[in-house]
Amino acid sequence: MHRIKNLDLLIDLYELTMAAVYFEKEMFDPATFSLFVRGNSPSRSYFVNAGLEDVLNYLKELKFDQEDLDYLERTGLFKKSFLSYLEKFQFSGDVYALPEGRLFFSHEPILEVTAPLIEAQIVETFIINAINFQSSIATKASRCVYAGWPRKLVDFSLRRTQGTDAGMKVARSSFIGGFKGTSNVLAGKVYDLPIVGTMAHSFITSFEKEIEAFRAFAEIFPQNTVLLVDTYDTISGAKNAAKIGKEMAEQERSLRGVRLDSGNMAQLSKKVRRILQQAGLNDTLIFASGGFDEYKIQKVISEGADIDSFGVGTKMGVSADIPYLDMAYKLVKYAGKPVLKMSPGKKTLASDKQIFRFVSSEGKLEKDIISLREEKQKGGEKLLKKRMEKGSPVKEFPSLSQIQKVFLDEFSRLDSKYKSLEKVEEEYPVYLSPELKKVQSRTMHRIRVKELGES
Amino acid sequence: MHRIKNLDLLIDLYELTMAAVYFEKEMFDPATFSLFVRGNSPSRSYFVNAGLEDVLNYLKELKFDQEDLDYLERTGLFKKSFLSYLEKFQFSGDVYALPEGRLFFSHEPILEVTAPLIEAQIVETFIINAINFQSSIATKASRCVYAGWPRKLVDFSLRRTQGTDAGMKVARSSFIGGFKGTSNVLAGKVYDLPIVGTMAHSFITSFEKEIEAFRAFAEIFPQNTVLLVDTYDTISGAKNAAKIGKEMAEQERSLRGVRLDSGNMAQLSKKVRRILQQAGLNDTLIFASGGFDEYKIQKVISEGADIDSFGVGTKMGVSADIPYLDMAYKLVKYAGKPVLKMSPGKKTLASDKQIFRFVSSEGKLEKDIISLREEKQKGGEKLLKKRMEKGSPVKEFPSLSQIQKVFLDEFSRLDSKYKSLEKVEEEYPVYLSPELKKVQSRTMHRIRVKELGES
Repeated sequence: MHRIKNLDLLIDLYELTMAAVYFEKEMFDPATFSLFVRGNSPSRSYFVNAGLEDVLNYLKELKFDQEDLDYLERTGLFKKSFLSYLEKFQFSGDVYALPEGRLFFSHEPILEVTAPLIEAQIVETFIINAINFQSSIATKASRCVYAGWPRKLVDFSLRRTQGTDAGMKVARSSFIGGFKGTSNVLAGKVYDLPIVGTMAHSFITSFEKEIEAFRAFAEIFPQNTVLLVDTYDTISGAKNAAKIGKEMAEQERSLRGVRLDSGNMAQLSKKVRRILQQAGLNDTLIFASGGFDEYKIQKVISEGADIDSFGVGTKMGVSADIPYLDMAYKLVKYAGKPVLKMSPGKKTLASDKQIFRFVSSEGKLEKDIISLREEKQKGGEKLLKKRMEKGSPVKEFPSLSQIQKVFLDEFSRLDSKYKSLEKVEEEYPVYLSPELKKVQSRTMHRIRVKELGES
Repeated sequence: MHRIKNLDLLIDLYELTMAAVYFEKEMFDPATFSLFVRGNSPSRSYFVNAGLEDVLNYLKELKFDQEDLDYLERTGLFKKSFLSYLEKFQFSGDVYALPEGRLFFSHEPILEVTAPLIEAQIVETFIINAINFQSSIATKASRCVYAGWPRKLVDFSLRRTQGTDAGMKVARSSFIGGFKGTSNVLAGKVYDLPIVGTMAHSFITSFEKEIEAFRAFAEIFPQNTVLLVDTYDTISGAKNAAKIGKEMAEQERSLRGVRLDSGNMAQLSKKVRRILQQAGLNDTLIFASGGFDEYKIQKVISEGADIDSFGVGTKMGVSADIPYLDMAYKLVKYAGKPVLKMSPGKKTLASDKQIFRFVSSEGKLEKDIISLREEKQKGGEKLLKKRMEKGSPVKEFPSLSQIQKVFLDEFSRLDSKYKSLEKVEEEYPVYLSPELKKVQSRTMHRIRVKELGES
């Protein structure tokens, strides 16, 4: 299928115009940029980190081919000397980053790039694009998993994700956030994820009668028969499914499940369970889908729904209530000097940094301290790990199962007061170290004097 | 840069399990599926169609290579005979569709596929994925353009779109909806769109003083100098920009613009205009960015903001208030017989259809009638055009400029009562033809009799 051959120009134009000025002015000193979520969200008190592997692959492979350079030349914006520089471009910097699956909080630096200014600048667009989205989905998925726990959740979002790349990234990120599989076959292939799915309403309507559709499916997929029962009427559909379940039992096979996709889930699921049990189908599972997210999962469970597993689609796949994080990538150090911007509501933390995470003797998460990179904080775990050195990844990527395990373990150690779905009740304690505060106020003072004429 | 080689398995698993049953049961009769937006949205009374070109390319090129087939075999779900069928798979159907850029309304069929059942089924996931998202963005963009009219809007969303494919599709779809350009360089190259952008805050902070950064930029890009003035303080930044503007004027160059990115836009834009005018910079434009969408554009204009052009980013690029449409692709006819599903709140319109659009003698849009495909409606324009026949596109794709023109023309003929940003005041009149109603009630009657035992 037709695709755009390479994504290397997937860059905001201003990255290249700035780079052209740095090139002319010979500004090649090392710069550090810091990636973080700005401000506080009314309904997210924690985030789940995802997207790092993409970023490291991107940094390793970014280059501009002749077709890219020809296009840039045609824009008439750039000099030949700068285009020759781009022709040889290769990212040569260092990356410190929070591993995928780890929790983070607003204002914390989750990835810092140190490289010659142009290199560190040019990669901004892709880095934000990759981590902002994937973390927002891993976070959303974790909320659904928390609401449904210990029921299994699977990703049904592919048809309504925002494009094809989103479909892939949602499958991967929702797995990091605790989902058990996806309907996306390509994600199954590429990421080695369990794939799930059986039939749509069109399957039912393409047969003369619903029960004929059920019977045909059970014949071809006896190990994996999940019958969709709401095409015409959920109760009569469940009765038809029960009939098929009994037929399967006579052949020493078993009906794996039924799926509800509309109507009042609490009431219907209880009625359907009774129909299944009356037919002796005690192991047949009830799956539910149709507009689920953490809020609807919580609601139907609180109403007593008897559901074993949820297919979670669109609202998770676009993170419908918070479809983006306010993630920014800001210059914090250039040529050895800490820098920051002071625009209202958009202040940044100067200098290269580290996060230290402290846990209680029972292993519960207690607090984080953001410090200067070189500081030590006794008893805290350093969260930012060196993941790239001089342009090369320094570690094998963990498997998705390992990342999911990292997430589930840490999430179980986060107090439930930070997991409220509706509104943030209490902010997780994140402090700045005294040393970082000093650098921050010295840098702001320097700017006030030189830019704003204060003394 | 590393990419997934082919997207042909970007399919929900159930498309393939259903297809395997159809294959075994030799259900190869022609089927018609219909694509439409379900239900009514509280804040969208019209939609702008986008994504058709992608769908037609997909249908033409979809095939399964050996690697795909090997993966499917490894899942253990499918028989060899079915995999052999997939190996030879090629879409051979017909497509009737609404052209890109045209307006549509809830419940209207905007694309209908007629093909042997398996072919028409398998392409569901991609078709919804492509058109649901691109139409939601074209619609969102059109709302921003309407709010800002006649000011120019450009797409700044790339860093926070939901993945890379979304970044491309947003650039394209927002152009269809009336935007004038994008910051996305790759979209500029691939879609031949104007690209825009100059500098970020990091550019300012990487220089010792703001005015040095401004001066360096003006030196390297004298034709395209737009100075970002809010890094430390917007007013002092504007004064620095005015100084640079005067220096440029002395060299017979001119400062193209300044960009505001934070703070109270109405107040600041008026103050900045005064600073520019006092420096004799009467042609220097004021650009604004920072959290704009149709609501914020409307607000700052109503407060008297003096802004010439808006950079519109994240909230447009994810369609933040409505990040998905409830778009569905439903079987409406199989083996010559109209079919439908009856799930609560999810009813479909049976049979293959046509939309007729009626305009007044002054050219204003008056009403639409949804009819059976073969009906005639005197005086109405048939909106669904044949775009694919036996698997081949039947027409050259229009250019994006042509599509934008189609949109702008039709949009100007839609009454403003259907363009309210806040809440749908009045639904645009869409009727079903008497013939379609008859088929609908006959089909429902047939289902009630055979499935639900009614008579």
